[in-house]
Amino acid sequence: MAAIKVHGSPLSTATQRVLACLYEKGTDFQFVPINMAAGEHKYENYLSLNPFGQVPAFEDGDLKLFESRAVTHYIAHEYSDKGTQLLIPGSNKDMAVLQLWKEVEAHQFDSPCSKIAWEAFYKPLMGMVTDSAVVEENEGKLAKVLDVYEARLTRSKYLASDCFTLADLHHLPTIQYLLATPSKKLIDSRPHVCAWVKEITARPAWSKVLAMQKQ
Amino acid sequence: MAAIKVHGSPLSTATQRVLACLYEKGTDFQFVPINMAAGEHKYENYLSLNPFGQVPAFEDGDLKLFESRAVTHYIAHEYSDKGTQLLIPGSNKDMAVLQLWKEVEAHQFDSPCSKIAWEAFYKPLMGMVTDSAVVEENEGKLAKVLDVYEARLTRSKYLASDCFTLADLHHLPTIQYLLATPSKKLIDSRPHVCAWVKEITARPAWSKVLAMQKQ
Repeated sequence: MAAIKVHGSPLSTATQRVLACLYEKGTDFQFVPINMAAGEHKYENYLSLNPFGQVPAFEDGDLKLFESRAVTHYIAHEYSDKGTQLLIPGSNKDMAVLQLWKEVEAHQFDSPCSKIAWEAFYKPLMGMVTDSAVVEENEGKLAKVLDVYEARLTRSKYLASDCFTLADLHHLPTIQYLLATPSKKLIDSRPHVCAWVKEITARPAWSKVLAMQKQ
Repeated sequence: MAAIKVHGSPLSTATQRVLACLYEKGTDFQFVPINMAAGEHKYENYLSLNPFGQVPAFEDGDLKLFESRAVTHYIAHEYSDKGTQLLIPGSNKDMAVLQLWKEVEAHQFDSPCSKIAWEAFYKPLMGMVTDSAVVEENEGKLAKVLDVYEARLTRSKYLASDCFTLADLHHLPTIQYLLATPSKKLIDSRPHVCAWVKEITARPAWSKVLAMQKQ
């Protein structure tokens, strides 16, 4: 039995973030599906793994974690000698730049991108009506963030350096949903952002995460 | 001239987070006040330090950073042998637990606490009317977060371990504003949370940050 267990849903962006990281590392793990429609993430035994009742929850032997970005941080450090090197080891200054772009994803990019995905992807899927005012407001916010990315990506191939790191990986789940909405135009109209998105969404590890949605 | 410069406002929670970290470390730094009322954070020379036009921006010699939590991460690692040890060095598993509680602050605690602070502290200060429905909604969310903290703080003195770390420090600015609102009752009614808040807000480094607001 694998020491690593991921409890979550293949449709959840936070779960996908952890899965992408594990596939990049090539680490064995067991996936434990949580049926969110049935409310399993609010069951008492699940709350002992994640007291906020959110997916994913993560176990590595005795260690129990939650919060997807804390989990990827742990995996990248604990398995630093396996698979893709997702950090910039050696220099505090290089790691600070990586940390900076991880924070930008979490505090600038995630909110407008997730709101657009909710309005323009999930809601139509569930027969609900998209609120176009919310989409427009968040397209404005996301455009400003992507302008900063466009300038940054003229200076390095990926956000934190010329190598793919956690800072790029953390964007994958929300970007994938954005690509399925008309707001994809915000990416298409920025050449460096567009090339970066093509590059990171084409990674074999990410294809494995997407394949899990079809099982 | 100090190698470290912090550009920001003593009233901004993100600026305070960085200042608290520097005072804990006892590192020399130069504070460069940014007059946000005059829109200085949107000036072109400032945008070269923080392209999102937010405070703070941070310099350490050639290194330029923004995003307060990325800055504290850098300071704690770069100056790990000075002042308060804000990390749990040595073990990936202990550091993972620290990372987890840092993510909880950023993704569970910060939003409801900041919204209450905006409605019940800032708005009255500026002659605006508090929206009590927003306060009530966010008090509900914050209460659930603080229930998790109360359970956690029965097991360790601070959030990540028995020592004060960045995970605790990151809460200080928003907690300080919360204490000045009637929603303080959410802290007072939870004995372990209340003791933890008393402990962390009494730190000499934090008093120095508060003193800067009065200059």
